[in-house]
Amino acid sequence: MSEPQTRLELEHLAQALRAVRARLAERRSPEELRAELERLHPADAAFVLESLPPEERLALWKLVPPEREGEILLELSEAVRDSLIATMDSKALVAAAEALEADEIADLAPDLPEEVIEDVIRALPQEERERLRAAMSYAEGTVGALMDFDQVTVREDVTLEAVTRYLRRMDELPNHTDQLFVIDREGKLRGTLPLARLIVSDLAAEVRTVMVPESVKLHPEESAEEAARAFERYDLVSAPVVDHFGRLIGRLTVDAVVDHIREKSAEAQLAEAGLSGEEDIFASAWASFRNRWSWLAINLVTAFVASRVISIFEGSIERLAALAALMPIVAGIGGNSGNQTITMIVRALALGQIQPGYWPKLIAKELGVATLNGVIWGGMLGAVTWAIYGNAALGGVMALAMLLTLLLAAGMGVAIPYVRARLARDPALGSSVLITACTDSGGFFIFLGLATLLLL
Amino acid sequence: MSEPQTRLELEHLAQALRAVRARLAERRSPEELRAELERLHPADAAFVLESLPPEERLALWKLVPPEREGEILLELSEAVRDSLIATMDSKALVAAAEALEADEIADLAPDLPEEVIEDVIRALPQEERERLRAAMSYAEGTVGALMDFDQVTVREDVTLEAVTRYLRRMDELPNHTDQLFVIDREGKLRGTLPLARLIVSDLAAEVRTVMVPESVKLHPEESAEEAARAFERYDLVSAPVVDHFGRLIGRLTVDAVVDHIREKSAEAQLAEAGLSGEEDIFASAWASFRNRWSWLAINLVTAFVASRVISIFEGSIERLAALAALMPIVAGIGGNSGNQTITMIVRALALGQIQPGYWPKLIAKELGVATLNGVIWGGMLGAVTWAIYGNAALGGVMALAMLLTLLLAAGMGVAIPYVRARLARDPALGSSVLITACTDSGGFFIFLGLATLLLL
Repeated sequence: MSEPQTRLELEHLAQALRAVRARLAERRSPEELRAELERLHPADAAFVLESLPPEERLALWKLVPPEREGEILLELSEAVRDSLIATMDSKALVAAAEALEADEIADLAPDLPEEVIEDVIRALPQEERERLRAAMSYAEGTVGALMDFDQVTVREDVTLEAVTRYLRRMDELPNHTDQLFVIDREGKLRGTLPLARLIVSDLAAEVRTVMVPESVKLHPEESAEEAARAFERYDLVSAPVVDHFGRLIGRLTVDAVVDHIREKSAEAQLAEAGLSGEEDIFASAWASFRNRWSWLAINLVTAFVASRVISIFEGSIERLAALAALMPIVAGIGGNSGNQTITMIVRALALGQIQPGYWPKLIAKELGVATLNGVIWGGMLGAVTWAIYGNAALGGVMALAMLLTLLLAAGMGVAIPYVRARLARDPALGSSVLITACTDSGGFFIFLGLATLLLL
Repeated sequence: MSEPQTRLELEHLAQALRAVRARLAERRSPEELRAELERLHPADAAFVLESLPPEERLALWKLVPPEREGEILLELSEAVRDSLIATMDSKALVAAAEALEADEIADLAPDLPEEVIEDVIRALPQEERERLRAAMSYAEGTVGALMDFDQVTVREDVTLEAVTRYLRRMDELPNHTDQLFVIDREGKLRGTLPLARLIVSDLAAEVRTVMVPESVKLHPEESAEEAARAFERYDLVSAPVVDHFGRLIGRLTVDAVVDHIREKSAEAQLAEAGLSGEEDIFASAWASFRNRWSWLAINLVTAFVASRVISIFEGSIERLAALAALMPIVAGIGGNSGNQTITMIVRALALGQIQPGYWPKLIAKELGVATLNGVIWGGMLGAVTWAIYGNAALGGVMALAMLLTLLLAAGMGVAIPYVRARLARDPALGSSVLITACTDSGGFFIFLGLATLLLL
């Protein structure tokens, strides 16, 4: 942190934000504004930039010194980052990227123009260049894409005394160095030496005798999600990343894991509501439209299918218009209850809690819940329908349709993730759209079909 | 970690799970099974228990030695934890709790019977008892509820040499000790001494000259969410928690923060689908019903209101049954687009990115997106309606109703969080239900109303 800070950050940020906006409004000298910026942590500067409307944002960005641009770009949300990168020329981008470490450049790379990346690669020293190439080669969502290269390594046949002297020669240990990595001549990981152990142990002892010989090891192609779960489960601060020969190639730290978890959780929340990605709140209507259109298009298709199902029964509706008023209740409750089932099952699948033999038990239980819901809510709605329309048969149809739709929702709520897990597809993807499509069309069909059969 | 482990945990867990199940199936001797359990990290044992059906789960739980029961209970999901606690008598519960530290007992306390807590408190030494009382006094979701008491403290007027000697006398430093806390005679926090600094500094120096005098400080009543954001933003491993006099009373560590973030994100996902809490996948149908009923009841009410809106227009529907088939499309797309708007705004509010003066801009932008959507999708649907029903006027009503409903959705999508933020309510709570209720009833009313006015 670059600035003394005695209270929690949100308050401090609100204050920083007000100060910067006030300066911009007063058109104070750029020097004053620059000094203000200088005092902010990169994450805080990014926050201020995200919270400003486009013109003010750009004015402020122009005041950021080139050597700080890279670290601030890293902290920005993708939408805002892209908008700022679009205003920078190649030279400025190369300068910003060069101030970063290999793993950080790799994080920015997808948003940079090709020729900028080539220039940056050319300007890097040999070792950094290879690291950048390695980091860029791993797919998003893997350990390789999150790891850094700031590991401190020692040999196992030296004394703790020697290790301590070696560390003293460094001015500062890299962030999140809670352990040193012990490697042999070929670079293979032999174990780890936690700082906490180094400090409490006898300095005359050899590393070999003090180190932890076996610990969680990650491989760069493993999924970041699994790694995050290991960090969570075993309360890790850092973990070594090794290649297939067991050679140490980097490390993963808890801050990268926390960022990953937050990002995934934000993405899930946004996807749930049908947003393809994080949105700059000041984005143009057109940019927002593009971020949102695909979900609306999919829903339009499923709503259209449901509408065609209803149209089969237009004759029945003409004769008993009450059906039109009642049918959305059946379809709606079916959709809600199907979503409950599918969410529960997708979650248990993601946590690895469902063994192959458990499916019959799950379906039995869900059908049980659906029956309970159907009898209780269906009975209640049937009675209300009877009371409103004075038509006992219509009430009966309502209750029966409700029960059957809830059973359908429960069945599909288990079947959809089951089939997708069997086909080795991600069972979470679009599960809400699928179940709602089933329960909408199914609910309308069941209710209107029963009414046609039994009432008309 | 209690067991050597060379690959990532999920694989290892699946294996452990299979092994334990095989033993249970073969009805091997409890000794063998107990040995198997013994080798598992508490988090892994909890995972195995969660993944077993009730009878096997209980059989396995009976084999857990009393001194490990506490640490495993801590790792279990609430639903499964409750089911196991229900099978234990007071004596066993007191024994399990006594093996834990004060902050851990406080985590379990809400699930324990009153008399067990009293017994545990009575059995604790004075200092632990006060800590437990303190920890239990903080509301869920505050820093106080997440903090622990494992901070290592030093004075500022001693040399690093003396600090090192002091640490050596401890067998082991507490987990996540990345820094020592420097306090004065009154227990007031003076600064922090990162281990990484301690190691690279001259041992003759005094703590005062090496420590970081100012750093992030938390207060126990601050929100855990804000603290998590500070950890994320400033990449912290631990942070001191101080009272209003500046006295150090505990610390917050990144593992507690990660657990908190995960829990919140899981809760949000479950709440989104209308589940009140984490569900044991093997719960009885009745227990599941109770976890899910409130959401269904709320939706039943809103669906019922929408149904009453439709019933106003039963006369129109009798005359033109196509209206019944088309109306769910309008209401559905309105709901989807309203959810997109409200999610984006609630998120920006939560991140503190919306300044008071920004609201007019936001509403203008959302109305712009709605107009784009209305013209594009409304036009398309209007044309399709015309083609299917050969009725140009009906197509026109469809297109116009779509546009108006999308504008309503955008307006409500901004207005609902605005009003709630103004009233200092949590703008996220139930926002999806509220907006869907508005767009359903509103969409039906707009479409059927326009059709009645213009067509009949």
